[in-house]
Amino acid sequence: MSSSADDDVPEVDLDAVRREGLLAPPGAGPVAHDGAGRVSLRFTVLDPDPERTTQREVRVPPGVPVFDAASWNGIAIDSTCGGHGTCHKCKVRVEGSTPITRHDVKTFTREQLDDGWRLACLVQATRDLAVDVPPLTTRPKAATVGVGRQVILRPAVQKRYVELDEPSLADQRPDIDRLLAAIDDLEPVPDLHVLRRLPTVLRAADFKVTAVIVDEALVDVEPGDTTDVRYAIAYDLGTTTVVATLLDLALGTPVAVASMLNKQQPFGGDVITRISATMMDPETLPRLQQAASATLAELAAQVCAEGEVDPRHVYEVAVAGNATMTALVLGIDPEPLGVAPFVMATSQPAAVLATDVGLDLHPRARVAFFPALGAYVGGDIVAGMLATGMDRDKRVRLFIDVGTNCEIVVSDGDRILSTAAPAGPAFEGGAIKCGMRAADGAIEVVRLGDDVQLGVIGDVEPKGLCGSGLVDAVAELAKVGLLDGTGRFVPDAQAPTIAPALADRLTRIGEERVFVLHRPHADAPPEECVVLSQRDVRELQFAKAAISTGWTLLLEELGLEHKDVQQVLMAGSFGSYISPASAVRIGLVPKLPVLRIVSAGNVAGEGAKMALLSIRERAGAEALLEEVTYVELSDRADFNDRFVEQLGFGG
Amino acid sequence: MSSSADDDVPEVDLDAVRREGLLAPPGAGPVAHDGAGRVSLRFTVLDPDPERTTQREVRVPPGVPVFDAASWNGIAIDSTCGGHGTCHKCKVRVEGSTPITRHDVKTFTREQLDDGWRLACLVQATRDLAVDVPPLTTRPKAATVGVGRQVILRPAVQKRYVELDEPSLADQRPDIDRLLAAIDDLEPVPDLHVLRRLPTVLRAADFKVTAVIVDEALVDVEPGDTTDVRYAIAYDLGTTTVVATLLDLALGTPVAVASMLNKQQPFGGDVITRISATMMDPETLPRLQQAASATLAELAAQVCAEGEVDPRHVYEVAVAGNATMTALVLGIDPEPLGVAPFVMATSQPAAVLATDVGLDLHPRARVAFFPALGAYVGGDIVAGMLATGMDRDKRVRLFIDVGTNCEIVVSDGDRILSTAAPAGPAFEGGAIKCGMRAADGAIEVVRLGDDVQLGVIGDVEPKGLCGSGLVDAVAELAKVGLLDGTGRFVPDAQAPTIAPALADRLTRIGEERVFVLHRPHADAPPEECVVLSQRDVRELQFAKAAISTGWTLLLEELGLEHKDVQQVLMAGSFGSYISPASAVRIGLVPKLPVLRIVSAGNVAGEGAKMALLSIRERAGAEALLEEVTYVELSDRADFNDRFVEQLGFGG
Repeated sequence: MSSSADDDVPEVDLDAVRREGLLAPPGAGPVAHDGAGRVSLRFTVLDPDPERTTQREVRVPPGVPVFDAASWNGIAIDSTCGGHGTCHKCKVRVEGSTPITRHDVKTFTREQLDDGWRLACLVQATRDLAVDVPPLTTRPKAATVGVGRQVILRPAVQKRYVELDEPSLADQRPDIDRLLAAIDDLEPVPDLHVLRRLPTVLRAADFKVTAVIVDEALVDVEPGDTTDVRYAIAYDLGTTTVVATLLDLALGTPVAVASMLNKQQPFGGDVITRISATMMDPETLPRLQQAASATLAELAAQVCAEGEVDPRHVYEVAVAGNATMTALVLGIDPEPLGVAPFVMATSQPAAVLATDVGLDLHPRARVAFFPALGAYVGGDIVAGMLATGMDRDKRVRLFIDVGTNCEIVVSDGDRILSTAAPAGPAFEGGAIKCGMRAADGAIEVVRLGDDVQLGVIGDVEPKGLCGSGLVDAVAELAKVGLLDGTGRFVPDAQAPTIAPALADRLTRIGEERVFVLHRPHADAPPEECVVLSQRDVRELQFAKAAISTGWTLLLEELGLEHKDVQQVLMAGSFGSYISPASAVRIGLVPKLPVLRIVSAGNVAGEGAKMALLSIRERAGAEALLEEVTYVELSDRADFNDRFVEQLGFGG
Repeated sequence: MSSSADDDVPEVDLDAVRREGLLAPPGAGPVAHDGAGRVSLRFTVLDPDPERTTQREVRVPPGVPVFDAASWNGIAIDSTCGGHGTCHKCKVRVEGSTPITRHDVKTFTREQLDDGWRLACLVQATRDLAVDVPPLTTRPKAATVGVGRQVILRPAVQKRYVELDEPSLADQRPDIDRLLAAIDDLEPVPDLHVLRRLPTVLRAADFKVTAVIVDEALVDVEPGDTTDVRYAIAYDLGTTTVVATLLDLALGTPVAVASMLNKQQPFGGDVITRISATMMDPETLPRLQQAASATLAELAAQVCAEGEVDPRHVYEVAVAGNATMTALVLGIDPEPLGVAPFVMATSQPAAVLATDVGLDLHPRARVAFFPALGAYVGGDIVAGMLATGMDRDKRVRLFIDVGTNCEIVVSDGDRILSTAAPAGPAFEGGAIKCGMRAADGAIEVVRLGDDVQLGVIGDVEPKGLCGSGLVDAVAELAKVGLLDGTGRFVPDAQAPTIAPALADRLTRIGEERVFVLHRPHADAPPEECVVLSQRDVRELQFAKAAISTGWTLLLEELGLEHKDVQQVLMAGSFGSYISPASAVRIGLVPKLPVLRIVSAGNVAGEGAKMALLSIRERAGAEALLEEVTYVELSDRADFNDRFVEQLGFGG
């Protein structure tokens, strides 16, 4: 980033800023997700030692605050206020023209504002940006994670440095009693592992040691003062993708993030397929467990290598996963999850060691799992509720985690209801003619007008259609009128009158009608093109009807109507990338202004981070078990009728 | 045993019995230990199925109640009253003439008394006996163990059989919640091990299962009703000998007992040698741990085979061992135990699994260790205090566990003091010219008069002298006057006038004076004989002085004199076999009537059994940590002076 003043920065009327709050330059104003694919942020993480200054490029949904984009990707920025612009600590320098808020005006000098300095929590990533991040200045007492959540740092992992009196004939207390007596505020129970080494460590270290405590357990005693060295890994253990974030628990900041496909993929794309596999062959459960462990282990190695952290200094792990992923990684027989009446072995596995899930971190590292509300509203959703503050916000809010199994939560600020809707694989590209996962070559954005505009992941030749592209394609075709209110392509004869510029793209493969989204070359036959077929539209209709039936019934349970919803949180690796406008158009979410529809990002992973940073938040997640009512829809007499009502696009 | 009436049974004056209490036939009266070696008891354990009737022969110190002799050796006899003759349940039939008590008269008909029926708790084994034991009749609520201790059965191992409602869409509770809700009185925490199998087990067993709980942990869920099947193993983990007792926790009875030498023996005979070995070579600690584990495992296999019990049904283990044995079996660095200021790593290792000490029992079996009062008053002594009720008896009592390290406890019925005295290896045959362990060929009893009478273990040719034989030999030589009050052999010239029949046995090997105890043949030179040397006498003097200095100082701390002691308990595998009369004569114990000196047997093992049978007793053992004051003698200014005072035999 150039250090010269940027000519594009508009003149700022500071008085107007103070008066109006937010001052936006023309064309850059407060931006909701407009469905324009992802934006790219290039972070330059400055270091007092220029040799250690690093660069990272990340892609996020548009509209995400720069602070969140950094945090989700393991880039630490000072902050203690929870993204409300009040702590004035999350200072970054942004290249190019960026709106100035009244908080920026309070925080920076005119010269700094001209130079691009802004508060990261108030800059929305509406376009590709280059961002300079200064070194962390202070040890924070709180960290900002999740969707605008601020947590006071109080990890389950605690360290206490003590200098003990040496034993004498007048004071023959056992080593462990001597140590524990010196720790005022905690009464941990020593692991045998600790007792084995304790005499040697104490004496080698002249009785100056650091006790390592996780929850109720004394897991290690380290020579000297190591209080600053404590790490944990937060996992979002998804059926498809697994994300690991290495956290510095002393600072409350992410150190590194990595993600990869769940190595269980070869056993089936969704949870039901994997459960079925264990029912066919008793050898499959241990293999699935091993595959999950290998995934976690590989990610742990990656984030530790990237963060230059010794895995032995990782003392705790939090895992947010659905009930099936949780059962499989623990080697718990998942069969009852897959057949009615859909029963878990446990809502919250306790007292699990990292070694129990095949992780080679600190030998006595603990694993914290999120509690699950039901077989299909698992720990990942509870983590998501935590990250979005579903139990703390007085607004009427709807939380949707879109996927093969779609979890839905509605809160009226008082009661919280949850349910699960079997949406099927459409959002993951399954059962879709040209469907694919959201990888390079996937069409993720579709705009129809005089022409077809495509957003393609990796900016390469389109190869297929991912979930957000599918939603966009159907929504746009409905908008231009080529799909009618029942989801059927209009007759060939009508198409030229409805959308002259697009009509020639409506054709057939065999008997089936298709809409050509991308032709590799002008003469390509439909079979060689990326197309949306009539059956694809039907698949999406079924998926969205399952979901909208779910939240419709939950809202009715609370005596609410669609218009009462004040915010919709679209969560999960699919939901976060669906265009709000398209989601509204096809009826996936209530018909609301798109500003009320928020991409919440990887909230399961954020919840896992919160649980590691704060035992209070962790207790809050456990309290959700009591606060949230799980509503089973599959045995409701009116489900099918309501489902059929929801199939259309509402004209 | 013949079923014919035994002509030796005397006529019984039943009125006299009722009037006087105990009626003893001539020459068989109430017998204290008179030092006559061991007696042999041949038990015939009757079974309703004659094919399963078994025989066992055991050897015990004379004077031990038949009930205790059976219990110590894993032979179950009905009892609930604690050996006070009140429950009238411990019925056995004894061959030959046996005293009849008033409790016997209340319990049995004249014909039964004539036929040899007695209450086992009131029959003292003063001679070799044949004893018929009838099958167990009732499930007791209490068991008699230790030294006349009765414990209400309440093991840490609990089983609960439950028949659960099957899940439905209206009741989707997780499996573990469903199970735990059906258990009213306990709230165990499930092991991961249990959760892994729970769904499968519940459904295979039609939701009729038995929960297995150890302390706070749910360790298994077994199909069907297995509440009667629960076992535990009590270990006395001695430096020299290890004893294992398999207990039926449903009945509170021993099933099988086995003992063997500690496989750590090759690393040194006493704890200091073994600790030193770990200091020389870091590889030694794991080898010592492995040796201890192998000892425990071999004994477990033996008792399970003998009791026909599946090791998977052994859910708990209790270990009573000294601080060093406890550290070594757990792999805890023992070095600080071996050097001043003698510090333990922990007074009570918590949360240990059987697998942690190399035992292949139930995979989640727990190990309970006894708390230790100090590096040299370990868990074995606390177990012994529990078994002897040191904290519950209002009498002034002295407890002495004789060994290389001798532990001493004194209670005045209110305060309890303990200390350790370094007696050296004399009692184990170490540093003694003809010393040996108490094995076949060891002289264990010596009587001097007109001749030398020897009691030899195994009734074979004498090969050497064990601890009790050494004490006897010195005591008898002092009694006849061949040793003077300072412990020196009288001059050769005086010997014939003092003990004419024995004087020729006083001779020399090289320069050293020796007393010949056994000549293999008439012309054998002293070098080929079993002898007691002047240096042996000195070794014993040092050993007994260390011990008597210990209890003298403890008594002084309590403001008591020797004569105030109402009972001396001689414990441990050495102490139990020392002749009380000889112990008094050499000053090893206070000068008291021998009736007040009781061989308490393997009290550490008995304490371990109590801990397994009753969590209350286990809590009592833990409470001893607070109730007992450990007195460190090694830093007392007056210790050396007092030690010198105690060296002689008091004339």
